[in-house]
Amino acid sequence: MKIKGVLIDITGVLYESGEGFGHVIEKSVEAIQRLQSSGVPFRLLTNESSTSKEVLLKKLHYHGYNFNGEDIFSPIPAVKSIIKSSNLRPYVLVHNDVVSEFDEFDNSDPTCLVLGDADSEFSFQNMNKAFNVLLSMKKPILFSLGKGYYIWKIGICLLNELFYDSRKYYRHNNKLVLDVGAFTAALEYACDIKATVIGKPSAQYFEVALNDLNVSPNEAVMIGDDINSDIGGAQKCGLKGILVKTGKFTPEILESSSVTPDFVADNLWHAVDYLLSNDN
Amino acid sequence: MKIKGVLIDITGVLYESGEGFGHVIEKSVEAIQRLQSSGVPFRLLTNESSTSKEVLLKKLHYHGYNFNGEDIFSPIPAVKSIIKSSNLRPYVLVHNDVVSEFDEFDNSDPTCLVLGDADSEFSFQNMNKAFNVLLSMKKPILFSLGKGYYIWKIGICLLNELFYDSRKYYRHNNKLVLDVGAFTAALEYACDIKATVIGKPSAQYFEVALNDLNVSPNEAVMIGDDINSDIGGAQKCGLKGILVKTGKFTPEILESSSVTPDFVADNLWHAVDYLLSNDN
Repeated sequence: MKIKGVLIDITGVLYESGEGFGHVIEKSVEAIQRLQSSGVPFRLLTNESSTSKEVLLKKLHYHGYNFNGEDIFSPIPAVKSIIKSSNLRPYVLVHNDVVSEFDEFDNSDPTCLVLGDADSEFSFQNMNKAFNVLLSMKKPILFSLGKGYYIWKIGICLLNELFYDSRKYYRHNNKLVLDVGAFTAALEYACDIKATVIGKPSAQYFEVALNDLNVSPNEAVMIGDDINSDIGGAQKCGLKGILVKTGKFTPEILESSSVTPDFVADNLWHAVDYLLSNDN
Repeated sequence: MKIKGVLIDITGVLYESGEGFGHVIEKSVEAIQRLQSSGVPFRLLTNESSTSKEVLLKKLHYHGYNFNGEDIFSPIPAVKSIIKSSNLRPYVLVHNDVVSEFDEFDNSDPTCLVLGDADSEFSFQNMNKAFNVLLSMKKPILFSLGKGYYIWKIGICLLNELFYDSRKYYRHNNKLVLDVGAFTAALEYACDIKATVIGKPSAQYFEVALNDLNVSPNEAVMIGDDINSDIGGAQKCGLKGILVKTGKFTPEILESSSVTPDFVADNLWHAVDYLLSNDN
C-alpha cells in the first residue's frame, strides 16, 4: 500500500520544548526537506491551542524549517471553520495570546463556548463566567481545544510510575500544570454535557485534517511521539501510526501501552526514510 | 414500622438561605422542639463544608433553634474522623473559614487531599498545587466534601428548564457558581482517579450518620428539600425519604424526577407531625 498523505506531530517530533523556543531534534529538518522534495503531501497536526499559527510558524522557521500557514493544522483554525459553517456565536476562554483570533465573530448572546489551553486565565472568576454562559444557552455547545491529553497522560504515567517508586517519566523535569482537559471535565460535570473535542485523539480531528489533504485514512500515516494521542488516535481513525523515540517517548510507555504502533522509528528522519524507501 | 432515627437537612428545611443569616422557615423551630420532646433521636445532616460547626450553630441559635454540636453531622467532622482512623496526612483545599479545622493534623508529605467548597480559593494556582500534591502520592486519595450536588442539580434543572424557555427554577435569583463537584471532576480527570465523596447522596455518608445514631437504615427517615441528594440518596441507602415543599422544592422538579419520595410534606412541621402522629 502506497502512502499518499502524512500527518506529523510538532512538539517532540520537530523540536523539543524547553526554555525559549526549545531545541530542534537532530535530522528532523533534513527529514522534512526530504518529504517536501518527495512530493508526498503532509500536514503538521498539533493540539497546540495557546499559540497563534503565526507564532508557531516563527518558531519553526527559527529552528530551520520551511513551512507555510497551510502546512499547519491546529485546533483554532479547525474550530473557527466549524463555528463559521454552523453559524455559531462563540464565547471564548482561551490563552490571551490567541483571543484575537476570534475577533471576527459576533460574540453577543453566545451559542457556543470555546475552551482552549487558557493557562492562568483558568481563574475561579473566568470559570464561573464560562459556566454561566453555558447555562444561558438553549442548547449548550462546548468545544474543547486539544483536551489536554498530553498532561493527562503524563499524569497517568506518572501515577503508574510512582507505584513502582521511580520518577523516570519526568524526562525534562516538566512543570506539571492542569491543562484544558481538566477544566473541560469541570464544566462537563457542572452542566451535565459532553464537550466536542477539537484535537487528537478525536477521530473527527484526524478526519478534517485528512479531508484537507484529500486522502482517505487507509492511505495515510501519522507520525508522533505520543502513543495514545498520536498513534492510538490515528489507528482508531484507520490511519497507520509511526511512533518516534523522541519527545515524550520512553520504552516503559511503549511496553505498558495497549497501543501497538505500526512502526517504531528512532526519530523523524528514520520514519520518513522508512516511508519513502519501502513499499509500505 | 416505627421510626427510630431521623436525619434532617438544614438549608431549605430549617431556614432559607439569603442575605446575612437568611430567614427561618415557619413552624420549623416548633417542629424541632416537638421532635426533641418526643425523644426520637435525630441528626442534622448537611453537605455544608464552607462553614465551621460553631458558625453553623450560631446561625441556628440565631433563628431560635436549640442544638448542640453533637446534633450536627457535616462533611468536615466526618472526613476528620476518617483521616484519624486511617492515619492519613491531609493536604487541604477548603474555604478559608475552615482551614483551621485541620490544624491538628500533620500535613507534611501528604497522603490524601481534602477538597471542600473553597469558593474563590479555587484559583488556577491552588488547583495546580492540589494536582501536584495528588501526583506526589504513592496511592492518591481524594476526599471531596459534599461534591457540590446542589449547584450541579441546579445546573441540570436550569438547563432542562431553559429548553422549555422559562427560568422559574431560579426561585431566589440564586447566584450560580461552580461548586466543589466541578473542581473534583477536574482533578479526577487529570489524575485518572475517583474521589471519595463525603456528603449526600453518598451512601457511605448516610451510613456513618446512622452509625452515630445507632439505628439501621430501615428504621430511619431522611427529611430534606432536595429530591436527589436527600431523598434519592437516602432511599438508595435503605432509609425512607420525606420531601418538604420548602427550600429548593418546586412541583416541576418533583414531577420530572425519577425519585418518588415516601411522603411529601408541606414543611418540616408537617413532616414531624406525620412521623409522630402515624404508625409509619
